[in-house]
Amino acid sequence: MKIAIAQLNYHIGNFESNTQKIVQSIEKAKEQEADIVLFAELAISGYPPRDFLEFDDFVEQCRLSIETIAKSCKGIAAVVGGPIKNTTGKGKSLYNAAWFLADGKVQKIIHKTLLPTYDIFDEYRYFEPNTIFELLEYKGKKIALTICEDLWNINDDNPMYPINPMDELAKLKPDMMLNIAASPFHYEQSKIRQDVLQKNAETYGIPLYYVNHVGAQTELLFDGGSLAINANGDIVEELNYFDEDFRIIDHEAVNNMPATELNSQSKIALIHDALVMGVRNYFQKLGFKKAILGLSGGIDSAVTLVIAAKALGAENVHSLLLPSQYSTDHSIKDAEDLANNLGSSYDIVPIKSLFEQFDQSLKPFFKDLPFNIAEENIQARTRGVLLMAFSNKFGYILLNTSNKSEAAVGYGTLYGDMNGGLSVLGDVYKVDVFELARYINRDKEVIPWNTITKPPSAELRPDQKDSDSLPDYEILDTILFQYIEKRKGPKEIIAMGYDEATVLRILRMVNMNEHKRYQTPPILRISSKAFGMGRRMPIVAKYLS
Amino acid sequence: MKIAIAQLNYHIGNFESNTQKIVQSIEKAKEQEADIVLFAELAISGYPPRDFLEFDDFVEQCRLSIETIAKSCKGIAAVVGGPIKNTTGKGKSLYNAAWFLADGKVQKIIHKTLLPTYDIFDEYRYFEPNTIFELLEYKGKKIALTICEDLWNINDDNPMYPINPMDELAKLKPDMMLNIAASPFHYEQSKIRQDVLQKNAETYGIPLYYVNHVGAQTELLFDGGSLAINANGDIVEELNYFDEDFRIIDHEAVNNMPATELNSQSKIALIHDALVMGVRNYFQKLGFKKAILGLSGGIDSAVTLVIAAKALGAENVHSLLLPSQYSTDHSIKDAEDLANNLGSSYDIVPIKSLFEQFDQSLKPFFKDLPFNIAEENIQARTRGVLLMAFSNKFGYILLNTSNKSEAAVGYGTLYGDMNGGLSVLGDVYKVDVFELARYINRDKEVIPWNTITKPPSAELRPDQKDSDSLPDYEILDTILFQYIEKRKGPKEIIAMGYDEATVLRILRMVNMNEHKRYQTPPILRISSKAFGMGRRMPIVAKYLS
Repeated sequence: MKIAIAQLNYHIGNFESNTQKIVQSIEKAKEQEADIVLFAELAISGYPPRDFLEFDDFVEQCRLSIETIAKSCKGIAAVVGGPIKNTTGKGKSLYNAAWFLADGKVQKIIHKTLLPTYDIFDEYRYFEPNTIFELLEYKGKKIALTICEDLWNINDDNPMYPINPMDELAKLKPDMMLNIAASPFHYEQSKIRQDVLQKNAETYGIPLYYVNHVGAQTELLFDGGSLAINANGDIVEELNYFDEDFRIIDHEAVNNMPATELNSQSKIALIHDALVMGVRNYFQKLGFKKAILGLSGGIDSAVTLVIAAKALGAENVHSLLLPSQYSTDHSIKDAEDLANNLGSSYDIVPIKSLFEQFDQSLKPFFKDLPFNIAEENIQARTRGVLLMAFSNKFGYILLNTSNKSEAAVGYGTLYGDMNGGLSVLGDVYKVDVFELARYINRDKEVIPWNTITKPPSAELRPDQKDSDSLPDYEILDTILFQYIEKRKGPKEIIAMGYDEATVLRILRMVNMNEHKRYQTPPILRISSKAFGMGRRMPIVAKYLS
Repeated sequence: MKIAIAQLNYHIGNFESNTQKIVQSIEKAKEQEADIVLFAELAISGYPPRDFLEFDDFVEQCRLSIETIAKSCKGIAAVVGGPIKNTTGKGKSLYNAAWFLADGKVQKIIHKTLLPTYDIFDEYRYFEPNTIFELLEYKGKKIALTICEDLWNINDDNPMYPINPMDELAKLKPDMMLNIAASPFHYEQSKIRQDVLQKNAETYGIPLYYVNHVGAQTELLFDGGSLAINANGDIVEELNYFDEDFRIIDHEAVNNMPATELNSQSKIALIHDALVMGVRNYFQKLGFKKAILGLSGGIDSAVTLVIAAKALGAENVHSLLLPSQYSTDHSIKDAEDLANNLGSSYDIVPIKSLFEQFDQSLKPFFKDLPFNIAEENIQARTRGVLLMAFSNKFGYILLNTSNKSEAAVGYGTLYGDMNGGLSVLGDVYKVDVFELARYINRDKEVIPWNTITKPPSAELRPDQKDSDSLPDYEILDTILFQYIEKRKGPKEIIAMGYDEATVLRILRMVNMNEHKRYQTPPILRISSKAFGMGRRMPIVAKYLS
C-alpha cells in the first residue's frame, strides 16, 4: 500500500481554491499509484476558521466542497479534514473531523478527541470531543486515523487530558497510524513535534504517516515538515519546511527505510524563513502586491525591509525616510545604503515643516509648556499619517516594524510607529532582531554594519538612546522571556538573580501597556507565546502594576 | 437563617481592594445578624482574570487573600469565588471554585461544573470541570452551592451540556440553593437570567439566593441585579442594576414573601446606564479622571460626550472641535451648543493649515493625482494626532466615538477617528444611537435637535452624506444584526426579503474590514454579540468577501 502526503497551503474560507488544490493532489497521487492521500486537519476550511464555524452556511460550504472532492476519489482514497455537524442534540454543535473518501463517496468520518483549548487554540469553543474509537479498513489494512492533538498524550504524559485515543485504538490492532494536523510553528516546535510523533510510532510499534498544514494564516505560521515514521520510530521522510510538498511512501517498505537526515536549521534561520513566508502569504492571500514601511536607519526597520523584499521582491517594497530635526545624518545614510543594497525604491519626506505646523496649531493651547512625550509622539504620528497617505494613494500595505521588546514595555507610539497591516517583528525580541540582521549579512553586507553596531535610538529628542529609559536589551529580553513565555512571577524571576527593582519595573511596564498592544496589528507568531490571540490579558487590572 | 447578598464591584487583580471590600461586607452582614453572606464568582480576582490565571503567583495571591478573608468569618459564614489549583495531576490546572468560609477557616471548596466556552467566555481554557456533587451543611441547613452557568442547563434544555449539576444535587435534598455568578450584561440578558433562575427554584421547589458581579471590566459590563427567589419561583428581592448593593433575606420567611416589582427599564435606558457605568469604571479603575473627544456636530460624538459627562462629570470632559474646509457651519454651532448645554469645556483647532501642509509635503510624490480616500483620511488622521497631543500633554484619555454600524462596514479611518482608549458606542447600531439621543433629550434639549435630525455625514469632502455609500441605516442595521448577532448566512438574510446585491455587499464589507476592527479600542459590550473578545474572526480569509 502506498501513502501519499499532500502538504498544502490552504486559504481560510476559500472553498474554490482549497477544493481545487486538493483535487489536483488527488489526481497527482492517483497518477503515481498511491492508495491513500492525506490532507491536513480542517484542510477544507483552512485552519483556524475561528467563528466562521458558528455560521451554518460556512459549515455547509465545507460539506459541499468535500462532497465534490469525494467524486474525484475513484481508484484512490483520501483523508480530508473538515468540520461536521453534531446531530446528537447534545454538546457543542460541531466535530472536528477527518473525512475518509473512497469510491467516489464519503465512506467514514472520524472525530477528534483531544481538543486543544489553550494559547492560540480555541477548539472547545466549537467542537464536541469524540468518544467512539474504531479503525478504518481499506484494502485489507486496519488504519488508526487521528487528528493532530490526539497523538499528544502519548504514555498519558500530558496532564491536560484524561484519555489517550491511541491507547483505545491500539487495542484494535491497527497496521498503521494516519494523523492529519494543523500544528503551528514556533522556533522550537518541530523538534517537540518529532519527539512526540516518534514516541507514538515506537510505543505502538507501527508506522505513522503525518501531514501538517503549511503556510501563514495571518499571524499563525504553519511550517509543514510532514513526516513518515516507521515502526522503529525512525523518521524516514520529512517534507519541506515553509513550502508545499508532496511525497509518496510505500508502506510495505517503510520499516526497512533508513532514518533520513533531518532539517537542521538554526533558531534564527527558522525564524527568518517563517517570517518571509508570513509576509508573503499575508499579501498573496489578501491579493496585495506592494508594501511600504518607514525606514529609520535603525535595525528593526532594516530587518523588516529585508524580509519584505525577500517575501515580495525588492521591487514591490517602497520605503519612506521620514527625518525630523532629531534624526542623525548617519541614520539617513544607513537607510539609503540599505535600500540601495537591495535595489528597492525609497522617498525622503522630511517631517520638520509638518511638526512645526502642529506646534503652531497647538501653541494657543500648549502655550509654554515644555517639550515632552506629546511632541515626541507628534513626530511618530506625523510619520504614521504620511505612511498611510502613501498606502491609501498608491495601494501599498504598511508593514509595522516594532519588535517584541518594545511591544512588551510599551516603547512605541500608538497611531504612530505602531501602525501597520501586519507586524513582522512583533514576536522577535530585540536581541534576536540583531541576530537576524547578522544572519542576513552572513554572506555579504546587506544591512549596513553601522545599523547593527550603533546604539538603538528612537531619535525623537536630541541624543536620545533606548538605554536612557530601558535596561540593556540582554537583561530586558531575558526578564521578558521569563515573564511572557515562561509565565514566571516576580519572585521567581528575582530568585534567578535579577535586580528586584528592575524586575518589578519591567513587569509593571508590560502590564500597564496591555491597552497599547490591544490596538497593534496582528503579529507573526514565531515563539511559544506571542502577543495576540494566544495571550489574553485584561486591560483594566491591577496586578503587578 | 439569614442570607446576605453582597453585590460588589471588583477590580481585576486588585487583591487589596477586593479583599477590603469583601471583609467590610462581612462585617456589615455580621452587624445585621446574617448567617451567610454571598460574594460573586471569582470575586477575589475580579472577572474575567483571563491569562493572569496562568501565573502561579496570581493564583497564590488569590488563595492568600481568601485565607485573610476567612479570618474575619467568625460568627458568620461567607461564600467567596476564587480559583484553586487542581492537584489531581490530570486535567486543566485550576478549578473555578466557591470557597465556603466559617469559624475563621476555609471549610469547604465547591468546583464549577459547567464551564462556558463561547462568545466572551474562555473558561475551559483554564478550568477543569467538577465531577463530584455534594451539599454543604451549615447551621442545620443543607445547601446546594453552585457557580453561575451550573444553573443554566435547567430541565436539561441547554444543548451545550450533557449534565445538569442541580439534578445531581437535588437527589441529596437540599433546603436551599446558593449561586454565585459573573453574568455579563447585554440588553436582553436580565430577563433571560431571571427566567432561568426562576425555573430552577420552581423545578427543585426550594429558594435560590443569587449574587452577581456588578461593574465594568474594560469591555465587559456586569449589571448586578442579584436575586432572591422563593420556592414558588417568585422573585422576592432584586438588587440594584449598575450599582453595588447589599440585601439580607430571612430564609424562614422567604416563601411567604410576595413577588417584588421588577426593574422595568427599556432597552435604551438599560444601554444608557450600562454605558455610563462602563465609562465611569474604566476611568476609576485605571486611576484617570479626565476624558477628551472630538466633537463633530454629529450624533455619535454628541451621545458619547453626554455619556462621558454623566460618567465623569461635565467638568472632566474636554471636547475638541476640529473643523476642516468641508465642515459645515451648522456642525460647529451644533457642537458648541451641546458643550454649552452641558457646561463642558471645548477648544476649536482648525485643521485646514495642517491639511495644507500635508498636501504640500506630499505634492512632490502625489503630483496631480486626484483627491481621494487618501486626502479624506489625512483629515481624519490629523484630528487623531491633535486629540492624542492634547491627551499626552494634559493627561486626558481619548474616547472613541464610532458606532457599531460604522465599525461593521469599515466606515471609519484607522489611526484617525478610530482612535481612543475606549469605544463607548462601538456596540450600538446607528439606529440605537439615535434612540439614545432621543432618550437623553426626553426631558429637555441637551443634544441639539439639529444634530439628531440632519442627515449623517463624515464631512470629509464637499456635500458628503453617509447615504452616498451606505444603504439607509434602518436597512443596514437590520442586515448587520442578522449577520452579527444572529449569525445568519447570506441565503437566510436574502430569504427575509432583503435585496440580494445589498446583502452580499454588506456582508462583504463586514468581512473585508476585520483588519480594521482588529486595531480598534475595546468596545463596551451591550449586545449579545459585540466586536471584541466575543467575536473571533480570521483576518486573512476569503468567505463572502
